[in-house]
Amino acid sequence: MNLLLLDPAQIQDQCARITDARRLGHIREHLKLNTGDTIKIGQKNGLKGTALVKSITDQQLLLNQIVLDQAPPPKLPLTLIVALPRPKVLRRLIMDAITLGVEQLILMHSYRVEKSYWQTPFLQQLDSYIELGLEQAGDTIWPQVQCFKRFRPFVEDILPGLIAEQPAFVAHPYADQPMPVAINQPCVLVIGPEGGFIPFEIDLLQHNGCQPASLGPRILRTETAVSSIIGRLFG
Amino acid sequence: MNLLLLDPAQIQDQCARITDARRLGHIREHLKLNTGDTIKIGQKNGLKGTALVKSITDQQLLLNQIVLDQAPPPKLPLTLIVALPRPKVLRRLIMDAITLGVEQLILMHSYRVEKSYWQTPFLQQLDSYIELGLEQAGDTIWPQVQCFKRFRPFVEDILPGLIAEQPAFVAHPYADQPMPVAINQPCVLVIGPEGGFIPFEIDLLQHNGCQPASLGPRILRTETAVSSIIGRLFG
Repeated sequence: MNLLLLDPAQIQDQCARITDARRLGHIREHLKLNTGDTIKIGQKNGLKGTALVKSITDQQLLLNQIVLDQAPPPKLPLTLIVALPRPKVLRRLIMDAITLGVEQLILMHSYRVEKSYWQTPFLQQLDSYIELGLEQAGDTIWPQVQCFKRFRPFVEDILPGLIAEQPAFVAHPYADQPMPVAINQPCVLVIGPEGGFIPFEIDLLQHNGCQPASLGPRILRTETAVSSIIGRLFG
Repeated sequence: MNLLLLDPAQIQDQCARITDARRLGHIREHLKLNTGDTIKIGQKNGLKGTALVKSITDQQLLLNQIVLDQAPPPKLPLTLIVALPRPKVLRRLIMDAITLGVEQLILMHSYRVEKSYWQTPFLQQLDSYIELGLEQAGDTIWPQVQCFKRFRPFVEDILPGLIAEQPAFVAHPYADQPMPVAINQPCVLVIGPEGGFIPFEIDLLQHNGCQPASLGPRILRTETAVSSIIGRLFG
């Protein structure tokens, strides 16, 4: 946790009170803060800054002298569209994408996504994964996250509007052209499930504005592909 | 698992027998292979190819008609030096680095690495993590992996010889110059522990041939940094 994220309503007269167990535990056990120490804080969807620890117990943390005077880091102008991964991968994938600065994240269905994945209770916890990602990055701005449970209506009806005039790439091992390097402009990136998209899906994505782009001969796990491609697109 | 890795001694007269529980379980439950199906295989430190499933039970898999006729994917000409991460991160970090094609991986001590991390039983399992990474990538070539439990002797006595004439970068949030993009040549990359290197360590690394390079204003987890920087350096 490189930043303690506060709701605007939590901050009054430069003071705040934190009671949730996860963050209290982290601040006590990992950051080992005591009365008088400085902590980096941020206001959700607002500025970053610092506060002083007024008191800390296993019940609550009281902060005072809150100063919010720094802009959060800029987001990457990236719309990341990922086939819903296995539940145990979901948390890390979302955390990493948000930490890296993804502005808009879309989880969608695909032929090789097991239908049961859409029933996982982890999908109810997306906000907490986003919070972890923002805390890691030192960011305060909530990204847009959406789920689309049907592949074809999403690709045919929603995706073209998202792409608009931007370049859009779908990672695909059998593409002729390589994934571009340091594109550094607004773009859309589509990443398939374990086992990849089926040919019908690649065709439909291509027909709706996505260029298949190869990552070379190695087959990456979804979450490794996300970090690696983002590092490559935004250098 | 995108490749079943076999020891050269396992292959005789184009046949092989696999009995280890992890791979048998994966082949039965995930790949769902039956008699007559084709499976992608590779010989450790050798060629890749295919085999036919002769029979499969919960005790053993028998393969025949083994053909080894394809070269494994080329490695990245990268020496990756990482401060030993927390035990629970170690497995993923090694898997990802090997999947991405790191040729030489070094785990080293650093001030902010807890000494207890060097006692973890996970360090006895490096070979199994490497195997998972190779199986994921579809690679057969064992990378070189070494551990150095003392920072200063490693940096002063070993590192300059590793660097030789190559560019070497240490990821550091307060560096003036950014991490380069698409360098695509042999190089050395040094990544610190959670919390980063201390100033003495950065100075010593710099004095011994590493250029500090920034990743921008976001603070990444070690394993996210590894995938993201490799994607950026080798585009």
